[in-house]
Amino acid sequence: MNIVYANSAQIYSSVQSGALSATYGIENAIDTTWILVAAFLVFFMNLGFAMLESGMQRAKNTSNICMKNLVTPAIGGLAFFIVGFSLAFGADILGFLGNPTDLAMLGHLSALDIWPNTNVTSYAYFLFQIMFAATAATIVSGAVGERIKFIGYIIFTVAILTITYPLVAHWVWGGGCLARIGMIDFAGSAVVHLTGGAAALAGAIVLGPRIGKYADGKVNLIPGHNISLSTIGVLVLWFGWFGFNPGSTAAATVPSIATIAITTNIAAAAGALAAMVTAWVHIGKPDIGMTINGLLAGLVAITAGCASVSPGAAMAIGGIAGILVVFSVEFIDKILKVDDPVGAVSVHGVGGAFGALAVGLFADSSFSGGVSGLLLGGGASQLAIQLAGVGAIFAFAFSTSYLAFKAIDYAIGLRVSEEEETIGLDISEHGMSAYPDFEVPS
Amino acid sequence: MNIVYANSAQIYSSVQSGALSATYGIENAIDTTWILVAAFLVFFMNLGFAMLESGMQRAKNTSNICMKNLVTPAIGGLAFFIVGFSLAFGADILGFLGNPTDLAMLGHLSALDIWPNTNVTSYAYFLFQIMFAATAATIVSGAVGERIKFIGYIIFTVAILTITYPLVAHWVWGGGCLARIGMIDFAGSAVVHLTGGAAALAGAIVLGPRIGKYADGKVNLIPGHNISLSTIGVLVLWFGWFGFNPGSTAAATVPSIATIAITTNIAAAAGALAAMVTAWVHIGKPDIGMTINGLLAGLVAITAGCASVSPGAAMAIGGIAGILVVFSVEFIDKILKVDDPVGAVSVHGVGGAFGALAVGLFADSSFSGGVSGLLLGGGASQLAIQLAGVGAIFAFAFSTSYLAFKAIDYAIGLRVSEEEETIGLDISEHGMSAYPDFEVPS
Amino acid sequence: MNIVYANSAQIYSSVQSGALSATYGIENAIDTTWILVAAFLVFFMNLGFAMLESGMQRAKNTSNICMKNLVTPAIGGLAFFIVGFSLAFGADILGFLGNPTDLAMLGHLSALDIWPNTNVTSYAYFLFQIMFAATAATIVSGAVGERIKFIGYIIFTVAILTITYPLVAHWVWGGGCLARIGMIDFAGSAVVHLTGGAAALAGAIVLGPRIGKYADGKVNLIPGHNISLSTIGVLVLWFGWFGFNPGSTAAATVPSIATIAITTNIAAAAGALAAMVTAWVHIGKPDIGMTINGLLAGLVAITAGCASVSPGAAMAIGGIAGILVVFSVEFIDKILKVDDPVGAVSVHGVGGAFGALAVGLFADSSFSGGVSGLLLGGGASQLAIQLAGVGAIFAFAFSTSYLAFKAIDYAIGLRVSEEEETIGLDISEHGMSAYPDFEVPS
Repeated sequence: MNIVYANSAQIYSSVQSGALSATYGIENAIDTTWILVAAFLVFFMNLGFAMLESGMQRAKNTSNICMKNLVTPAIGGLAFFIVGFSLAFGADILGFLGNPTDLAMLGHLSALDIWPNTNVTSYAYFLFQIMFAATAATIVSGAVGERIKFIGYIIFTVAILTITYPLVAHWVWGGGCLARIGMIDFAGSAVVHLTGGAAALAGAIVLGPRIGKYADGKVNLIPGHNISLSTIGVLVLWFGWFGFNPGSTAAATVPSIATIAITTNIAAAAGALAAMVTAWVHIGKPDIGMTINGLLAGLVAITAGCASVSPGAAMAIGGIAGILVVFSVEFIDKILKVDDPVGAVSVHGVGGAFGALAVGLFADSSFSGGVSGLLLGGGASQLAIQLAGVGAIFAFAFSTSYLAFKAIDYAIGLRVSEEEETIGLDISEHGMSAYPDFEVPS
Repeated sequence: MNIVYANSAQIYSSVQSGALSATYGIENAIDTTWILVAAFLVFFMNLGFAMLESGMQRAKNTSNICMKNLVTPAIGGLAFFIVGFSLAFGADILGFLGNPTDLAMLGHLSALDIWPNTNVTSYAYFLFQIMFAATAATIVSGAVGERIKFIGYIIFTVAILTITYPLVAHWVWGGGCLARIGMIDFAGSAVVHLTGGAAALAGAIVLGPRIGKYADGKVNLIPGHNISLSTIGVLVLWFGWFGFNPGSTAAATVPSIATIAITTNIAAAAGALAAMVTAWVHIGKPDIGMTINGLLAGLVAITAGCASVSPGAAMAIGGIAGILVVFSVEFIDKILKVDDPVGAVSVHGVGGAFGALAVGLFADSSFSGGVSGLLLGGGASQLAIQLAGVGAIFAFAFSTSYLAFKAIDYAIGLRVSEEEETIGLDISEHGMSAYPDFEVPS
Repeated sequence: MNIVYANSAQIYSSVQSGALSATYGIENAIDTTWILVAAFLVFFMNLGFAMLESGMQRAKNTSNICMKNLVTPAIGGLAFFIVGFSLAFGADILGFLGNPTDLAMLGHLSALDIWPNTNVTSYAYFLFQIMFAATAATIVSGAVGERIKFIGYIIFTVAILTITYPLVAHWVWGGGCLARIGMIDFAGSAVVHLTGGAAALAGAIVLGPRIGKYADGKVNLIPGHNISLSTIGVLVLWFGWFGFNPGSTAAATVPSIATIAITTNIAAAAGALAAMVTAWVHIGKPDIGMTINGLLAGLVAITAGCASVSPGAAMAIGGIAGILVVFSVEFIDKILKVDDPVGAVSVHGVGGAFGALAVGLFADSSFSGGVSGLLLGGGASQLAIQLAGVGAIFAFAFSTSYLAFKAIDYAIGLRVSEEEETIGLDISEHGMSAYPDFEVPS
């Protein structure tokens, strides 16, 4: 068959005139396509976070948490475009930050520019990095939920996307100080998750607990309103993580993307089951909230080492993270008395720190391309490097976030009034109920 | 390791016998795979529309809106297969339609046929186009919600998929009259969204407002029943749009797919934030419904020009669309008194028309491969072409849809009875409640 | 522009050192990437099953069904890693099973190993197969819903993932007995869906009906609690099926992936519409539950023959499956009086058996690479082979599952107490309500 339709592909002609050439070959094409698909999957994690957090909070705050999770990728798309990306990946200044005027608004790139040391176009690399930045920011939204002013959240989101996260990303992925000492954080257990978790901790501390959480000297459980939504959330996150980790190769032309997908999947599975069993033994029931958090902690923890450890080690890392998260949630809730409605500090902070350290324990030279961890005969040197990186990132992310939250609190007040909190943020902040056809308790 | 399992890939043998060859090379493979993945993402937008519309309507009509969004891609899959695709992409007749007997049921294609002027197989191109057609049809379902007879909706869906949409697609993408004058509508701000929006307007007018909407001389708000579902919807749509726009290259071997993903993302972000701020200033609160509609309007508006404008212009286009949609929703609701429960006319109709015109304003020769818009020194000629295209498409889509709705109304009645509407379409049309364990007000 | 950032891709260096080479060329890269993306889509079907089943059951059992659908892919990820994969794809022993010590824990693979007779890495192939195994297991969760003990479900899931499914997969896809006689089951109508459906039937029989289902000599309808969730479920499943079927080529370098996507889509569409019309005529209303089941039955039925039949035949197969499912649901519910809350036996068991047989009827040599079915002049030989395969798989899957459920029942009791069932499994098994802010009837 050889029917030709005049102009049938007219719309494509200008686009396709740039097809495979000496400067944009087949490796460029396949790697760029892959990192874009991975970026789309990472973007989709915004839906995961939105539903996870929405389901774990009360019905009266649903519109508010959804709104926060809508504006976070929106702010990310603009703020990281205008300033964040340059700070993270612009020419290095003293190991601390990228040149902020470099690449500003990406104005001087053309579609054909290839990102240094990769095969992908700069725009593709940029999109992938935007999605990572938004992930770090959105981790905070759950921990500060049910009591933060919406405008305060927006201001903080701008701050983390233009200061805290870009600098941390620069240190590890932009050729900064932690890259130079040899820290390994393949897809961001520390860069993304520990940063987000530390910021979440700062926010939860500055805000204080929700009304009724620690009333009458007791630690009260405030259950989330919708387990179906949280289940959607966690499964979307697991799905999106297949972009997050395997996509961090920035290349489809490497066989290791499959290995990374396997380590990621195994750690998620081990995290879920370990947390379920731990909760069953420790609390006496197979708690779905703990299982969800264990699954996520397994994913967070494998993120640093997904390209450096064996599948068997991934099972260990995920399993340990799943056990850790159960006790961490309890410790933060009952001993520290920091009110984190969704367990973000434990999942992303503790899970992220452990994951970065685990590289120093479990790195396997046949996967990592040379580095061996303490448990595989490589000595403690890599573990020491990882520990330094974790310490630096936590200290910086926590302190800048704490200052940002305090500054917002001082300037405009960070927390809604008692009355607004009791009514719920949906009515008080957005003027509407999320479920007007149903009775929603205030 | 070199273990060989007899027959382990037995099932693949007949398939793989056709692997890379002189007529199906690596560019064919990567481009075909990419357009398929993009088609899957566009398909997934059906879930986005289903949840967006379900959440924005009352609980008593949930099963009905879900059912409409299930049958729309189903009807699309068959109707576009049997007749629509030929009308859109068959050999041109007088610039107005494709030869309807050409390609009918695709019976004479083989798996190896390559679509003219592309590298992708005809079946892959066909699947991508099916998904676009279904999108245009599904836009209507929300605007006519809560009062249209289910059978009337089905008949209209068949009509738009076999008449209105295929012809419009032919004009612009099938080598028809608008392609010949040089209209640029890369991924369908006008072809898909304005067509759907115009049909939605016709449906809303013919049906008239819902009971109680304009009672007692007042404009009453009828709130949707579930913001969580609408949030799922909008985030799934944003995700799917990464197939819609970058996939419209029909090629992974072009570097511009990354640039298109960036312009798409930036416009969505700008649309959401602009609508949020506009609503905050104008209505006094950061309204989540308006933010969702602004986000979608940004996506709709960038769709025509996503391959022809710079990222900075994408920010402007998305931002303007986000502002426009707030006032458009108010204008249609309060001045025109056309009852569109989900704002589809504003998002898709107004957003789509603006997006097509914006190409004439913002086209940038370093992205578009030559064309410059009015604001970039290219004069008004492209804008005039775009205006002509928008006018023609709106006139045709609105009038054929109006006639179709009127004909259905005349033949079998388009609207359910007052009693059925009051009870809700779930009970009256489908004999069941969507939420039988909960109290659903009628 | 040629800015170089020191270390900007530092994290990628060890990974990328393995990029395209003599042993891992461009075909390996594109095929591996494709099967990974397909595996991610198949994974995502876990969300589809979770929401489909959650929506079709009562609110008081929501946490439980979500929990089951979370642990199923988790157990799958570990059990198939440790033992299942070896049994399915290890070196053949007597046509019945793979050598269980072969490939155990995949410990002796390296990232560069290519799976025999494919271009994809062994890890990629493994991930794809894990996701298929988990699908077979998760089919059971709905049919045994609202009354099975959680621990009993877990034990059964381990059993099906380490015994029943791996052996069936070995017979057809691992070079076992059914492969040798020439059974065609491209993506698993029988291997995955009939196996899951037969296990679901065994579970439903051993458990007996839910309290109140057949009370007072009547067949009572127990409606699901949330049609929105079921709609999310079915659309996610349709989306995921684009990985399930086209991904089963294990290759992106074959043009037939597009043809398979088309046959898959057409069968889904035909199944939905055929079931809707059948229900409309037979029950008197366009029932959304039946439409959903028809859509799924169309997908299940095309799965065996998606690479062997024409698009027109796919329409017939999907349509017949959609009609069959309506009567099958009624027959099982009202005549056999087997209580299957979600219709899994009809959708996956009946749909899967019919789909496998349909290859013997509709196989078209211009698609299948040689084989013709009975209706296309190929005689009855292929049909006989398919019938033998369906019989063997059903007999084995049903009997091993029946024994497993009986053994669990004997050892620890398979069913919760009457009181626990009445209260709901959320409270009795997991100590929490899924919707604590809303009234949930017990």
